[in-house]
Amino acid sequence: MNATVNRQVLLVEKPAGKLGPEHFKMVEGAVPEPKDGEVLVRSRYISLDAANRAWMHGATYRAAVEANTVMAGGGIGEVVSSKAPGLSPGDIVFGDIGWQDYAAVPAKHMTKMPRMEPMTHLLSVYGIAGLTAYFGLLHVGKPKEGETVVVSAAAGSVGSLVGQIAKIRGCHVVGIAGGKDKCHWLTSELGFDAAVDYKTDGSLAKKLQEAAPQGIDVYFDNVGGEHLDAALAAANVHARFAICGMIDAYNSGQPTELRYLLRVISARIRIQGFLVSEYMAQAPDFYREMGALLQAGKLQSEETVFDGLDAMPEAFLGLFSGGNKGKMLVKI
Amino acid sequence: MNATVNRQVLLVEKPAGKLGPEHFKMVEGAVPEPKDGEVLVRSRYISLDAANRAWMHGATYRAAVEANTVMAGGGIGEVVSSKAPGLSPGDIVFGDIGWQDYAAVPAKHMTKMPRMEPMTHLLSVYGIAGLTAYFGLLHVGKPKEGETVVVSAAAGSVGSLVGQIAKIRGCHVVGIAGGKDKCHWLTSELGFDAAVDYKTDGSLAKKLQEAAPQGIDVYFDNVGGEHLDAALAAANVHARFAICGMIDAYNSGQPTELRYLLRVISARIRIQGFLVSEYMAQAPDFYREMGALLQAGKLQSEETVFDGLDAMPEAFLGLFSGGNKGKMLVKI
Repeated sequence: MNATVNRQVLLVEKPAGKLGPEHFKMVEGAVPEPKDGEVLVRSRYISLDAANRAWMHGATYRAAVEANTVMAGGGIGEVVSSKAPGLSPGDIVFGDIGWQDYAAVPAKHMTKMPRMEPMTHLLSVYGIAGLTAYFGLLHVGKPKEGETVVVSAAAGSVGSLVGQIAKIRGCHVVGIAGGKDKCHWLTSELGFDAAVDYKTDGSLAKKLQEAAPQGIDVYFDNVGGEHLDAALAAANVHARFAICGMIDAYNSGQPTELRYLLRVISARIRIQGFLVSEYMAQAPDFYREMGALLQAGKLQSEETVFDGLDAMPEAFLGLFSGGNKGKMLVKI
Repeated sequence: MNATVNRQVLLVEKPAGKLGPEHFKMVEGAVPEPKDGEVLVRSRYISLDAANRAWMHGATYRAAVEANTVMAGGGIGEVVSSKAPGLSPGDIVFGDIGWQDYAAVPAKHMTKMPRMEPMTHLLSVYGIAGLTAYFGLLHVGKPKEGETVVVSAAAGSVGSLVGQIAKIRGCHVVGIAGGKDKCHWLTSELGFDAAVDYKTDGSLAKKLQEAAPQGIDVYFDNVGGEHLDAALAAANVHARFAICGMIDAYNSGQPTELRYLLRVISARIRIQGFLVSEYMAQAPDFYREMGALLQAGKLQSEETVFDGLDAMPEAFLGLFSGGNKGKMLVKI
């Protein structure tokens, strides 16, 4: 990183269908000057999340990312200079700093974070991924001891934590992931009871019914589409579906086809979408419980760290081809 | 009706796609003899419900109706003879007596009903339709005063009651129905604030957004498919979707295509399927409140009564072509 040049990755145009490297472009410019109320932040780690893809799609819980602007993304940075009270040079902050070396951003949009080693934990187990897994599973899915919990994208940042927390809470846990290696990792390293490889031949609904013979009580969905449909087919009466993400729909732009939606009625299923932002008032519970579990070695935080801004588009695309394990980060 | 012949309407075969008159056949046989624990019931009124169609589809909350058996259906009948304690000749009962003149059925499957005039109220406002509207709206949808409630199949037996109860609870009520006449009836007779005709040209999502400019807080769905999708598009943050039926899916056998399912996450929508059977412990609340509203003239019970077993297949098919207004019954 050069202290006078700000490299930025722009979203060239909004993708109509499948996202590709052609939708991104690197440009260079001057390091911005913070205005009153702003801080200049130097990026340290930028988080890659499936939700970033949804931001290109249109307004969600945030405004859409427009063509020819810096690609948005949450990250951890260090304050270089400050024109705002409360933040000083050297402070570590979390916020939407975007895919760039430096960002001049309103201080009120940044959250001051503790210094910790490894710093990457601030974006994984203590970050949005951890918060999402914890509140989505416990407050939306509400699993009881002995129940069967199924999570899609189970080897991903959120899914790998959902499964581990569910195991700690005494549930029977089944993960859906792509490929033999990931499935093996889930059962051998993370303690999942079973894993379903959605990439092998055959009906996902059938494979899921075999892996969860007692039926599904809680389904934590990161994928949507065929995964959601298979979970509907295998759901028990009064099953709860915590809908966290729909990677399928973000990328295809196609409507979701559900063959088993009728089961919502006969099995009295509750499907509930959620955003982690609504649970922030209860974040202290989360930090206390996750901190204790990490310290006791009961929770693993898997991270895949890429190097440099140049690597971002390809690393991001890997999220949608099932290339990632755990939390994906880029070190700037 | 002949006292020695039992006419029955059979389901000839399970329909693969669209249901037609060719799927039904009338046969005649002897009036059955009740066994110990059974009663012989003479049918008086048989109820026609969209859910009957789902029973042909496969097991739902009851076993599927098999080919070459009497078509199942709830109805009101009079006990002719009894081999069971608790029920005597002349008693009025409700239960699944099927599409036939006489049924010999276990007494424990019948519910003794009060005699009332008109007797049809036992199948409409005091029947499953009324119970479903009341508990689905109030216990699943949970509308608050001033909120916007949208109901599909609004001119139907359940929908017409949902809208009226929501109005009484101080909500802004929009109904979706097919055709100018039904829409006019909803606003002029039943007090709906607006009605959307799904049969006119144009996007249902757009029409719904225009009719519900404040967005949807509670959506009570009887239809599924495009109706459900349009409601997702127009839903407010924290909207509640009470899923009562999916006429579209029963009849098409096709997967449901949802273009706006992603909004479940961004708007944190709760989609909840329900069966009225789960609320029967609270039925006394229902009878008290609905009885008072009816007596005070605040609630209208619309009924369309067809005449005779012969009329049943055509009358039933009318349910799916949008031909009905209010509760559909057949007088036997």
